[in-house]
Amino acid sequence: MKKYAIGIDYGTLSGRAVLVDIADGSEVASAVYDYPHGVMDEKLPCGTPLPPDYALQHPRDYIDVLTHTIPEIIKDIDPKSIVGVGTDFTACTVLPVDADGVPLCFYPEFEENPHAYVKLWKHHAAQPQANTLNKMASNQAWLRNYGGKISSEWAVPKVMELVQQAPEIYDAMARFEEAGDWIVRVLTGNETKNACAAGYKWLYNKKGGYPPRGFYASLDPKLENFVAEKVCPTVSPLGTCAGGISEAASKLTGLRKGTPVSVGNVDAHVCLPAVGIDGVGKLLAIMGTSTCHIMMSDRDIKAPGICGVVEDGVLPGLFAYEAGQSCVGDHFSWFIQNCLPEEYKKHGNVHQYLREKAQALSVGESGLVALDWWNGNRSVLVDVDLTGMIVGMTLQTKPEEIYRALIEATAYGTRMIVDNFRENGLAVDVMYASGGISQKDPFMMQIYADVLNIPVIVAAASQGPALGSAIFGAVAGKAYPTIEAAIEKMGAAESKTYTPIAENARTYQKLFYEYRMLHDYFGRGGNDVMKRLKEIRKCSKS
Amino acid sequence: MKKYAIGIDYGTLSGRAVLVDIADGSEVASAVYDYPHGVMDEKLPCGTPLPPDYALQHPRDYIDVLTHTIPEIIKDIDPKSIVGVGTDFTACTVLPVDADGVPLCFYPEFEENPHAYVKLWKHHAAQPQANTLNKMASNQAWLRNYGGKISSEWAVPKVMELVQQAPEIYDAMARFEEAGDWIVRVLTGNETKNACAAGYKWLYNKKGGYPPRGFYASLDPKLENFVAEKVCPTVSPLGTCAGGISEAASKLTGLRKGTPVSVGNVDAHVCLPAVGIDGVGKLLAIMGTSTCHIMMSDRDIKAPGICGVVEDGVLPGLFAYEAGQSCVGDHFSWFIQNCLPEEYKKHGNVHQYLREKAQALSVGESGLVALDWWNGNRSVLVDVDLTGMIVGMTLQTKPEEIYRALIEATAYGTRMIVDNFRENGLAVDVMYASGGISQKDPFMMQIYADVLNIPVIVAAASQGPALGSAIFGAVAGKAYPTIEAAIEKMGAAESKTYTPIAENARTYQKLFYEYRMLHDYFGRGGNDVMKRLKEIRKCSKS
Repeated sequence: MKKYAIGIDYGTLSGRAVLVDIADGSEVASAVYDYPHGVMDEKLPCGTPLPPDYALQHPRDYIDVLTHTIPEIIKDIDPKSIVGVGTDFTACTVLPVDADGVPLCFYPEFEENPHAYVKLWKHHAAQPQANTLNKMASNQAWLRNYGGKISSEWAVPKVMELVQQAPEIYDAMARFEEAGDWIVRVLTGNETKNACAAGYKWLYNKKGGYPPRGFYASLDPKLENFVAEKVCPTVSPLGTCAGGISEAASKLTGLRKGTPVSVGNVDAHVCLPAVGIDGVGKLLAIMGTSTCHIMMSDRDIKAPGICGVVEDGVLPGLFAYEAGQSCVGDHFSWFIQNCLPEEYKKHGNVHQYLREKAQALSVGESGLVALDWWNGNRSVLVDVDLTGMIVGMTLQTKPEEIYRALIEATAYGTRMIVDNFRENGLAVDVMYASGGISQKDPFMMQIYADVLNIPVIVAAASQGPALGSAIFGAVAGKAYPTIEAAIEKMGAAESKTYTPIAENARTYQKLFYEYRMLHDYFGRGGNDVMKRLKEIRKCSKS
Repeated sequence: MKKYAIGIDYGTLSGRAVLVDIADGSEVASAVYDYPHGVMDEKLPCGTPLPPDYALQHPRDYIDVLTHTIPEIIKDIDPKSIVGVGTDFTACTVLPVDADGVPLCFYPEFEENPHAYVKLWKHHAAQPQANTLNKMASNQAWLRNYGGKISSEWAVPKVMELVQQAPEIYDAMARFEEAGDWIVRVLTGNETKNACAAGYKWLYNKKGGYPPRGFYASLDPKLENFVAEKVCPTVSPLGTCAGGISEAASKLTGLRKGTPVSVGNVDAHVCLPAVGIDGVGKLLAIMGTSTCHIMMSDRDIKAPGICGVVEDGVLPGLFAYEAGQSCVGDHFSWFIQNCLPEEYKKHGNVHQYLREKAQALSVGESGLVALDWWNGNRSVLVDVDLTGMIVGMTLQTKPEEIYRALIEATAYGTRMIVDNFRENGLAVDVMYASGGISQKDPFMMQIYADVLNIPVIVAAASQGPALGSAIFGAVAGKAYPTIEAAIEKMGAAESKTYTPIAENARTYQKLFYEYRMLHDYFGRGGNDVMKRLKEIRKCSKS
């Protein structure tokens, strides 16, 4: 009898479940369910209006994903053939729950309180708290694990916001929980905390634990015992079993009671196993509106300008490094919305049309170099106040040349990240790419190979995170003795390798040199014009 | 009886004649005639194909302007009431003629030879010769009169091209003549050379004369006696009388034989009298696809980065300084052609629509600063290899913000020119503006006033050069004792003065500081990325 694993991927707008053959990782069935409440950024279901920068979700939607997708994908198989279930979730997405794991927003007395709901990863209202945190943390050794800066998207700024603005919720909650751990609790009834989210988003370190009580007290007196009182006391390695499907979850989903469920995971990080990465030196770029870069190493290095390094963050026994670019696909959308003349829009798919015209150019022919900072710089400068720049325009400059320069700029930005890893002693031999862009744009992938001068491998898995979760589900169900063994069988076969073209790589080396000069001039204090222009802008509007 | 003067303005594509009342400079009649041959840049009338960068004209067209426009504008008046005729011409526009002033292209044996025709100011094929000239001239004192660089558009590169590529034409010609002087010869039968073109385009200096024979010999042995043998021996001050209308010209035009004709002039420089400038410290900006700046001073200063300083170049007794920006109106055309999304084009006049949206922004609100070098930099850097740059883009940046940033960049470029004049001891108290943009774009004129922080005056004269020529015609006809007296009566009344708005000027001061930092970084060797990108581009295309 065939054996299957289930992977469930909770994204920003929907949840997706896949049924995977554990023999080869092939997808047998899949189902998607859009969250009925979507992202709540204007008002609560009861009509309570929300302040700016809010991004909430309703936990009921996550449960509805289970009841709508699991029965659908298992309807043609025997539930006994399912060896395990894995999940992944956006992060840091958090919610306050009671001692039984019931979200506080399910309580009638809190249903009009925004702080009782899920705060989605992109809830940005805790920026003032993040600023305070970064000031207070400047002398803390653990800050170096995060490239020197904590994001407002992470757990501690979000709990600071909670304690300051809704102390009644803070007092009422038994746990402040990562949504990716909460969904595991819904499935198993057991409380766990996955090592990936704990490490990247909760300031947890395998050797040092959480920051000390005194530090939390310095943020807010009420937070002194936050970790001891409101956070799950143990952190579980990825791939371990969180427990079996509970009686209640069995009724919801049709899964057999006791089916093993792995501890939670983060949607980006779970992609590495999915594309077949099981060791060091292989960078994964997950490319969409922005790009997330993850790579494993056996060395623990405090590289500057990264988003974080977490021991066991992707696979037990290795240090996983994360970096990022804040604006990749968004560049091209901006360009098409704001800078594309009419006649270019007459050709059906404008991206395709522009790509064809841009592809006809030789390397360097545009005479342009851009800095890809339309949305700030996440790595390696970690500076949201940087802005975009483009140089080299003449009266002959064509839209496709600007378009290509923006593509190249994102490749140079990735090269800065790769070079930063290398300069800090972390080898990078190959880049894997996943995410929509990697599948849709071979032209761009070739540019990345040429600019990075290493092979770029695009994995076949169209549903990277869900496949990754299924792999962890199979491991939790002991279908494989190790995660690496599961990856070897179930990880996606390579679909396409882009090899650097030597002549292009030579010219891109020259162009990258120009990018780096401009990057350092505008980004490292040579000329802070971008920040001053933002200041002038702020004054001009007030 | 009313008295009239005639001004004839020879532009790039047409000639225009105006009949002006000398009492107040008001326009009584005007007529335009488009050159039948236009600009010949692909082939000669006989079909001979032309190399790249050629821009020739047919001298027959200039004569046709006379026969088509003059009878038209004088048909309702008594020719006796015409006190004088003045002309102006594009420059440096040159042609080889025989001893009687007959263009060599009128000879059947030369009609297939491109070098026998008029080389228009924008004929750029003599760039290699200009490069040689600049190399050979680097130690010549007179080079400082031209900001240190000779343009390929000027007379000496053009005669170098002639002697090298068509020695038979060089040998056959009696004179190499500025078209603006040639047309005066057509009208009067007399050979003259006007001080303006001689000074700005022929390397003539009132005190030093032409460069020495030995220098010409260093360019080409055959050129040793070029000045002595092929150039009109005397240079005539502006406003002097070149002679009377000849018998032949009288038949062509209907003008009375003997009607005084002033010596020739250059179309840009003749605008100063037309807008009413009769003294020092008043900058005129003639704004079109590019901008030409002219200002007079009583001081002879070797300012770097100017196009030229010529004693008596505009008015006798004063030193006239010229500077320029290579790309002004062209910026906005480029933007609309290459960067404007469809929905913006649905609003009729897109420039008007963009201007309305850009005008709604406060100073500094766009967060953008651009360098206006899409077509190189004419002043003060004198560097054609510089290219455009824009900094400050975010994902929120809108087309109208970029459009406004380009307008502002041209104003900052003008401010650099004004500051350069001032730093070299040349006071600038006010800017006059003429040319299409100055009439059509009050929004832009206000930005110039705010950025320069001096009043900007837009003169009413719609036909600046032709009115200026009529003023010189009146002076040649002794209707006024001095040019200044003629300007006082005939120069255009102010139409509108733009006064700096203090609050805007304060913010623009900050923004100009950013422009200047970037200007110096990219333009003065801080980072020669623009030149290196051009080099890479050149290699990529070969």
